[in-house]
Amino acid sequence: MTLTLYSFGPGANSLKPLATLYEKGLEFTPRFVDPAKFEQHSDWYKKINPRGQVPALDHDGKIVTESTVICEYLEDVFPDAGTSLRPADPYKRAEMRVWTKWVDEYFCWCVSTIGWAFGIKAIAQKMSDEEFEEHIRKNVPIPEQQLKWRRARNGFPQEMLDEEYRKVGVSIERLEATLSRQDYLVDSGYSLADICNFAIANGLQRPGGFFEGYVTEQKTPGVVAWLARINERPAIQEMFAKAKREELLKRVGEPASN
Amino acid sequence: MTLTLYSFGPGANSLKPLATLYEKGLEFTPRFVDPAKFEQHSDWYKKINPRGQVPALDHDGKIVTESTVICEYLEDVFPDAGTSLRPADPYKRAEMRVWTKWVDEYFCWCVSTIGWAFGIKAIAQKMSDEEFEEHIRKNVPIPEQQLKWRRARNGFPQEMLDEEYRKVGVSIERLEATLSRQDYLVDSGYSLADICNFAIANGLQRPGGFFEGYVTEQKTPGVVAWLARINERPAIQEMFAKAKREELLKRVGEPASN
Repeated sequence: MTLTLYSFGPGANSLKPLATLYEKGLEFTPRFVDPAKFEQHSDWYKKINPRGQVPALDHDGKIVTESTVICEYLEDVFPDAGTSLRPADPYKRAEMRVWTKWVDEYFCWCVSTIGWAFGIKAIAQKMSDEEFEEHIRKNVPIPEQQLKWRRARNGFPQEMLDEEYRKVGVSIERLEATLSRQDYLVDSGYSLADICNFAIANGLQRPGGFFEGYVTEQKTPGVVAWLARINERPAIQEMFAKAKREELLKRVGEPASN
Repeated sequence: MTLTLYSFGPGANSLKPLATLYEKGLEFTPRFVDPAKFEQHSDWYKKINPRGQVPALDHDGKIVTESTVICEYLEDVFPDAGTSLRPADPYKRAEMRVWTKWVDEYFCWCVSTIGWAFGIKAIAQKMSDEEFEEHIRKNVPIPEQQLKWRRARNGFPQEMLDEEYRKVGVSIERLEATLSRQDYLVDSGYSLADICNFAIANGLQRPGGFFEGYVTEQKTPGVVAWLARINERPAIQEMFAKAKREELLKRVGEPASN
């Protein structure tokens, strides 16, 4: 049995299957797809996922896409490996799915748009106007993603950013409403609900970041304690430590390989 | 054991759990929530689902919301009842979830926006300006839904409608690409992938409807045959027949009860 995960580093949608694999203690080959080199749009990667999106899981030659679907797949195939990340009780499992669905349909989008507006600009502006347009037209298969890339380069409409910031606020309030009264999003314990929300929420605390003031000890003590609780988990620490080591090795190796 | 399903009639998101209950042969009480009377925004209903949205399932007093989550819940609780609607093979099950997720994140939204733009106007214009604004502000808890209601009454921006029609086209092409080579969306057989897509696609063929020309014998023979195949299923016929009977009874009963 071989598992290979194609992903960016441990953040956003890529973090979901990464954390799941570490929590379940499954052996796998991590295959870093470099967004700074547009590797997700490369021909070799689009043979794996024609939509040009990470993450993707290769399990004995079968490809599973969509981060949340990959997490459920790993639970379906390896229910007894490591930590079980789906509640056994069907009602709690439904609660878990309401949370993971909400991340994919709401929380992830508002955070992602702000991230694209302020974080992806540098990558998108690396190329000349002509190079950029040609790259997007030729290599990005999804029209909505093409639009996002163009906006990342040329700027997002201000009313869109205002609306997305409003939604970030709504999202954090929703998390806090639950996490102020219990340790995990579903009260049966740590589950995919936490992993999928953590994937989006973990970066929001960063001082000087795009979301400063949304997640603080004063305003959202429940969310802050929950983030700390997850960051202390051995599997999560291992995931971040290995990603750092890989990045370091890559940097050391780069001058020689260039 | 008692099951009660709160829903609109058998179309869109309400159809998903309705069809699942009929396919599984589960006894349940259907509780019609009347959109023409804004019942989904009523206090009694918001005690069941505070978000003011249908469908919602009451299973022995526990409430499950979100149509796709309800379908998976019914499979989790009653795996052996009637037709099994999730593939046993985890890889096929992941394929099924990519399809149900895609309905919720893409296909359902473009069709719904067109439906709202042209179909909900009459309901939204029943009230005076003041009554309407007061109703929306007081009774519709989700800001995005408030905006949708205002647009249904006052008109959607044309470029939004153009974009949504484009997405309807993309959606039908995606369905046809698969259904031109197999009977069901996942090749292991009829599943929640079909039910959730059928819920949105079934109305598109209607002559003189808002989507005329998108689903036709010439352009999309695979989709047409698949819709016919599902409409022939005894459970689906029973679902539509019972809904019609209920509607008729309601109409006959209405003058007396008013």
